[in-house]
Amino acid sequence: MRTPTWKRKHLDTVIATAVKLILFSAGPVRLVLEEDLRNELPFIMSRISRAPVINPVRQLSSGISSPETLPAGEFERTNVHSPEKRFRFYYFDIRCRGELARFILGAAGVDYEDIRVNLASWPALKDDTPFKTLPVLDFNGVQLGQSMAIARYLATEFGLRGRTPYEQALADSVAEAADDVLASHLEFMFEERSSKKENMKRVFMESTLPDFLLYLDQFQKVYSEEYGYIVGSKLTYADLAVYSLLEQLMSATIIDMNYFSYYKYPTELRKRIMSNGKLMRYINNRPRTDF
Amino acid sequence: MRTPTWKRKHLDTVIATAVKLILFSAGPVRLVLEEDLRNELPFIMSRISRAPVINPVRQLSSGISSPETLPAGEFERTNVHSPEKRFRFYYFDIRCRGELARFILGAAGVDYEDIRVNLASWPALKDDTPFKTLPVLDFNGVQLGQSMAIARYLATEFGLRGRTPYEQALADSVAEAADDVLASHLEFMFEERSSKKENMKRVFMESTLPDFLLYLDQFQKVYSEEYGYIVGSKLTYADLAVYSLLEQLMSATIIDMNYFSYYKYPTELRKRIMSNGKLMRYINNRPRTDF
Repeated sequence: MRTPTWKRKHLDTVIATAVKLILFSAGPVRLVLEEDLRNELPFIMSRISRAPVINPVRQLSSGISSPETLPAGEFERTNVHSPEKRFRFYYFDIRCRGELARFILGAAGVDYEDIRVNLASWPALKDDTPFKTLPVLDFNGVQLGQSMAIARYLATEFGLRGRTPYEQALADSVAEAADDVLASHLEFMFEERSSKKENMKRVFMESTLPDFLLYLDQFQKVYSEEYGYIVGSKLTYADLAVYSLLEQLMSATIIDMNYFSYYKYPTELRKRIMSNGKLMRYINNRPRTDF
Repeated sequence: MRTPTWKRKHLDTVIATAVKLILFSAGPVRLVLEEDLRNELPFIMSRISRAPVINPVRQLSSGISSPETLPAGEFERTNVHSPEKRFRFYYFDIRCRGELARFILGAAGVDYEDIRVNLASWPALKDDTPFKTLPVLDFNGVQLGQSMAIARYLATEFGLRGRTPYEQALADSVAEAADDVLASHLEFMFEERSSKKENMKRVFMESTLPDFLLYLDQFQKVYSEEYGYIVGSKLTYADLAVYSLLEQLMSATIIDMNYFSYYKYPTELRKRIMSNGKLMRYINNRPRTDF
C-alpha cells in the first residue's frame, strides 16, 4: 500500500534524523522508531538514500571520513571541500537568479566552484536542496538557499554591502527592486499566450523598467557620494544587481545600448564595471549563455 | 501637444531636481533649463506639484521651515516628524506584505505610526513612493521601499536579525522563503480562472507549504539552540515571518490549528509568540482585517 502524501511528508523528518545519525556518528547506528511508525520501516529505509541533509557547521573541518555511509544523493559531494575553495555555487547554466552571486564573487576576486546544474540532473538534486530551489551556496558545510539571501551574505562577507545599517537598507531596497524587475521580465519571457505576452512586455517597457531607472537616477543624486555608485562612495551589491539586470535585458534584446543614454546612473555604472578588472575577468571568461 | 511617454520619464529627473532645489533652499529658486527643454516648461511646472521627492538624511533634524514651498503631494507630510515617533509605516489596511514589519515593530515595543492607506488615495500617493509600491518605511527623512528590505532594516535596528553574518544569512533565507510561500498563496487567491485556481491551490497544499514546513523542522534541529526559534537562541525576524505567514493562512482558512501538529517548529514557535507580551499587545489591538 502506498503511504499517503501527508504521512510521507511527516515521515521525512524521521528519515532526515536517521540520515543525520548515520552521517555524524563514528560507528553503526540503531534506528529506534516509535510504535506507530514501525510498519513504515520499509518506506523509511527506501527513502534514507535520498533524504535531505543539512550539515551543521561543526562538521566542516572534521570532514566526513567514511564516504560509504553517505546517502547516495549527488548533493552530499559538497561535504568534501577542497581547502582552497570555501564556496561552491550551484545554479543552472543561465544567468537569471544566479548571476548576482557570481558577480559578487567575481568582483571580490574569490576562487570558488561555479557549478552549473543541467536540467537532466536537477530532479535528482532537488530534494536535497534547501527550499527545493536553486541557487544554493555551499560554504562552511552550510547549504544556503534563496538567491537574495545568498547575494546579501556574500556581499557582507566581501565588503559590498554598504558601510552602515542605513546604507545597507538602501542597497537592499535597490537590489530587491532590481530582482522584482527581473522577475517581471522572466514572467513575460515565459508567458505562452502571445497576446498576454505582448501586453506584459508593453507594461514592462513603458512603465516597470523606466520607472525603476528613473527612480535610480533620483536616488543616486541623493544617496550617492561618488559618480557611478548608487549608495555611498563605493561599489555595493545593489550596483551589481542593477548591472546584471540591464545586461540580461540587453542579451534578451529587450533594450540596446542606446537605451542607457536616457538615464544617467546606468551609463556611469557601466563605466565603473568596465574598469573593474576582477569582475571583467569573470565576465569575459564565463560560459556563454543566451540569458 | 502631449509630451511622449519616454520624454516625460526623462523630464521627471529635471522636475525632481527642481523640487529639491525649492525644498532645500532658504530663498526663492530660479529654474534654469537647457535649451532643448525650454518648450517643456509648462509641462515641467504642471508636474512640480506632484514630483517624487527623496529627502536626504541631513534634512531631518533641521526640519522644513516653510511648508508653503512644499509640493502638494500627500507624502511630503512625512517630513514633519513628531520627535517621539521616528518611524512611519505606510501600507494598505491588510496584512500581506506589510505585517512582518508591523510584527517587528510590535515585538520591539516601538511606538510608530501605523498608517493604513486606503485604495482610493493610493493612486495619488503612488508616484511619490520609492519603486511606486507599498509598503514604505519613513525614518530619519528616508523613505525606504521594498517589504523585505524594510523588515531586515527594522530587524537589524531592534536586534532581531541574528547575532553573526552567518546566522543572519540563515535567517534571511528562511524569511525570504516564507515571503515566497506567501507570494504563492496570494497568487492563487487572486487567480480568477477557477480551474487554474484549484490547481494552484492543490500544488500549494500538497507541496509548497508542507515542503517549506518540513524543511524548517529539519533546519531547526540543526541551527537552533533554543526550543521554538529557528536560528540560534533567540527570536529573529525569520520566526516572525513564518508566524505571520501561518497566521495569514489560517485567516484565509487555508489551514487550521490542527495542521500545526504535523510540524514541530510552528507548534513551538506559536507558544513563544503567545508569551511575547509586546507582540501580543500589537496583535490584540491591531485593526481587524480579513487577510
